[in-house]
Amino acid sequence: MPHREHSDIIFGNRGMSLEEEINQSNAYYLQKEIAVIHKKPVPIQIVQVSYPKRSAAVIKEAYFKQSSTTDYNGVYKGYYLDFEAKETKNKKSFPLSNFHEHQIKHMKACTRQGGICFTIIKFSVTQQLFLLPAATLFNYWDNQAKGRKSIEKKVIASFGYAINYHVQPLIPYLTYVDKLINK
Amino acid sequence: MPHREHSDIIFGNRGMSLEEEINQSNAYYLQKEIAVIHKKPVPIQIVQVSYPKRSAAVIKEAYFKQSSTTDYNGVYKGYYLDFEAKETKNKKSFPLSNFHEHQIKHMKACTRQGGICFTIIKFSVTQQLFLLPAATLFNYWDNQAKGRKSIEKKVIASFGYAINYHVQPLIPYLTYVDKLINK
Ligand SMILES: [Mg+2]
Ligand SMILES: [Mg+2]
Repeated sequence: MPHREHSDIIFGNRGMSLEEEINQSNAYYLQKEIAVIHKKPVPIQIVQVSYPKRSAAVIKEAYFKQSSTTDYNGVYKGYYLDFEAKETKNKKSFPLSNFHEHQIKHMKACTRQGGICFTIIKFSVTQQLFLLPAATLFNYWDNQAKGRKSIEKKVIASFGYAINYHVQPLIPYLTYVDKLINK
Repeated sequence: MPHREHSDIIFGNRGMSLEEEINQSNAYYLQKEIAVIHKKPVPIQIVQVSYPKRSAAVIKEAYFKQSSTTDYNGVYKGYYLDFEAKETKNKKSFPLSNFHEHQIKHMKACTRQGGICFTIIKFSVTQQLFLLPAATLFNYWDNQAKGRKSIEKKVIASFGYAINYHVQPLIPYLTYVDKLINK
């Protein structure tokens, strides 16, 4: 048998995307009445719909619209949570080009209203997960013109929190949201 | 000139749906950094997408899915807000059949997490608007089997708040959310 490092780590289902993993975790949190967090549907511009007799309406022509917000939001212990899920194939850093200006703007607006904003970043090659508070992201984002265009993994690990895959929920990110709340 | 009753009331744009009126109000609140509230996109099940060369992806077949949540959510003064917008052509009462079980369930779950939930109800014939706290709705909903199947307008007016159309924002509903917060 080959030597396995980190044999105590439960890996995520490698067939699942980060979003599917988070959706599954949110379903658990919802069912256990721990939090109410949902993925926002992808916004669509509908152009043509047909209404066949005796069956469901069919959208025949539609286009993807740019979202003006982030992937997820909801409520936990009275706090408004708002976050993005981002995967990267990079090994040592997370490129800021993964974000759109409007997502940053949205998270800044939510932060000003007292919401808790962050990103869940997955380094897919190593299956490492981190929760990165929005403050660090804003800092790098605002300085990218004269600074780095990516955030090093070691910076993410030091300003954020490494999340280990778990069973129920698969991604226990609220444990680290508690740390943000108590900061 | 014909006699006009209530000439001091600013009516909403009669061409606009309640959702459009609320969206416009939310755009104002966002721009003035008063709150960050968005309409959730309608969830769609996408079946077929075509990717024409040199132009945007076109959704060729898709279906409307039942939403598992409500119309709007967001953050205001650190509070999580979650609400439905409902219009009725009825004159004296608001039929509970306007709600789906899953919307009530969602609002109950959000309330348990400390979120502020309510409905903005528009009686379209008279262009009257009310903010109805979720507690009153839950009460009527849970008792509909042995009780009324609708909420009388006078009950809505007494447990909720009449909202007058305004200029900026068109529907100043956060004024009444403040009353819910300070209750
Ligand atoms: Mg994402
Ligand atoms: Mg509605």
